[in-house]
Amino acid sequence: MLYFVGLGLSGVESITLEALKALKGCKTVYLERYTNPSAPSAKELAEFLGRDVVEVSREFVEDGRRILREAKEADVAVACSGDPMVATTHQELRVRATKEGVDTKIIHGTSIVGCIAGELGLHQYKFGKTVTVTASPPTHSTVLDTVYWNLLRGLHTLLLVEWQPNRTLTPNEALKMLMDADEEARLGIFNPNLFTIVAARLCQRNQLIKAGLLKDLLHLDYGEPPYSIVIPADLHFTEAEALEALFKSECSNVNNTQYAKSKANVLVPRYVEKTRATLKKVREMLATKELKLNTSDLLENVDCYSSDALRFLNEGKTELAILSIGYAEGLLDSLRFIGLVEVPW
Amino acid sequence: MLYFVGLGLSGVESITLEALKALKGCKTVYLERYTNPSAPSAKELAEFLGRDVVEVSREFVEDGRRILREAKEADVAVACSGDPMVATTHQELRVRATKEGVDTKIIHGTSIVGCIAGELGLHQYKFGKTVTVTASPPTHSTVLDTVYWNLLRGLHTLLLVEWQPNRTLTPNEALKMLMDADEEARLGIFNPNLFTIVAARLCQRNQLIKAGLLKDLLHLDYGEPPYSIVIPADLHFTEAEALEALFKSECSNVNNTQYAKSKANVLVPRYVEKTRATLKKVREMLATKELKLNTSDLLENVDCYSSDALRFLNEGKTELAILSIGYAEGLLDSLRFIGLVEVPW
Repeated sequence: MLYFVGLGLSGVESITLEALKALKGCKTVYLERYTNPSAPSAKELAEFLGRDVVEVSREFVEDGRRILREAKEADVAVACSGDPMVATTHQELRVRATKEGVDTKIIHGTSIVGCIAGELGLHQYKFGKTVTVTASPPTHSTVLDTVYWNLLRGLHTLLLVEWQPNRTLTPNEALKMLMDADEEARLGIFNPNLFTIVAARLCQRNQLIKAGLLKDLLHLDYGEPPYSIVIPADLHFTEAEALEALFKSECSNVNNTQYAKSKANVLVPRYVEKTRATLKKVREMLATKELKLNTSDLLENVDCYSSDALRFLNEGKTELAILSIGYAEGLLDSLRFIGLVEVPW
Repeated sequence: MLYFVGLGLSGVESITLEALKALKGCKTVYLERYTNPSAPSAKELAEFLGRDVVEVSREFVEDGRRILREAKEADVAVACSGDPMVATTHQELRVRATKEGVDTKIIHGTSIVGCIAGELGLHQYKFGKTVTVTASPPTHSTVLDTVYWNLLRGLHTLLLVEWQPNRTLTPNEALKMLMDADEEARLGIFNPNLFTIVAARLCQRNQLIKAGLLKDLLHLDYGEPPYSIVIPADLHFTEAEALEALFKSECSNVNNTQYAKSKANVLVPRYVEKTRATLKKVREMLATKELKLNTSDLLENVDCYSSDALRFLNEGKTELAILSIGYAEGLLDSLRFIGLVEVPW
């Protein structure tokens, strides 16, 4: 049998009775701690369990051949902090084991995904997709994109800050990198007034949680990793109450959703303004001409559809808003195609 | 001190060492099991801990006054299965305690939110917002809405099936209700071919997981609660491999995202078709008239912008797609306003 054992987030104290039994009963216990610096060390775990524990590298688990070979003969455990199945490496090893006829059992541990909402006083069901912030730039657009779409739907985002043995990305660096990436992408989400929550060493004795405006959190010292960041959307009043009571955080009127503008919300007002300005000029130009054709109905409709576009936008009917302003532009531009007047966009 | 203690999902076996210590050390242990039928009973927990355990009602915890009064004098624990802070009742009690100067401590337990991806072999970061299916109809539109928006973004949805002491909603009933609600809303998501996963008694010894087409899962017997349902979006090949290996499930080419069509994807092709049909008629009508004005440029542009709309749609540029077809319609309709021809939409 191959056991995948999660040790939870609070060191040896968060080991479950089921995990304890499995770890004591296995012939070999492999410990991998390459993604979480707060995992108990092999020495600490060995002393606690009163048995041998072998710390292994990422490569050893990824390769997996020795683990699978041994698990065919005896009970073997692969242990890690948090929950064992959040890592895809373990998922893949489990599938390989199953295919090779080795029975597997997951013994779950508490993980940040299941704990963070509760620790912060936020509602679990208000969280959208989770994303990891890495030290290397290519992921930043994924992070921005995730926060943007979650905010558009009024959802909180959990950002896991990646840790690597030889490279600690601090919350300060992560936030600064996201501000820079946002400035380039011109989203306006990671701005100095974004309400942000930083959690360091979640569920450990020396857990530190700070909630406030991004500009005020940028220069704090968060101590040792691991870190995570939450970008809430708007706060339910019970969430605001919890943040204020638990972390002495000022969060009246927190509403980060204001920073995520849909394309329609950016484009439609701009297009309406442009169409109205052009309409005004066209009216003046036509006034000086003698035309056999009646254009007043057409021009009036350009005006009406421009107003409709803004009204639909306010009602959240974004598709209709865009359709209306496109229609108004088409009406106005027809005068150019027919050769009546040079429409000066 | 007021402890909030999560017992995890696997009965007394998933209790952590930290929880065990707190439960044994508290003057009073209150157990609430009104949201999860699989929680250990007060008798079972008392025998396991070798101490008194008092089972309490939802109302007792919501009222909370006695708990808070006692926690001012001694250590008191409120225990429940899963994680204690997923329930807003506990969140609120914690905030009240903090305001009244009572120290609190959360001792987390494994929860479905942190375990389900791993058990199913799905990637944690591919999950979007979670939602609860209740027996009463008003939530069905929220459920449909959540699955719809998650699918649009390519995200899996976890549906928690509500359990109440006097009313067990089965996965079969839940799925049938969602099919009915979908039929009314005409979304087409909860259709017979939707790839669906049902999990019963997750993380317990007699856990049952079935993955397949909705029509094939509708009539299976899932045994005792609790239940949860996952609607995956598309499957990463390692996810498909895991589902096949672990649950002997046929899931080649699973792609539920095909069932979530954005408004633009529904509207634009329809509008383009209509515009092209009208353009054809207008061309025929104009051919029989003798006009001083040149309309060929205009008509050609109606054609071009209609094609552009479909192209933008395929490229995922939905705003531009709608804008283009609105523009084309405006151009065509201008002929009516000017009085050149009666445009027959």
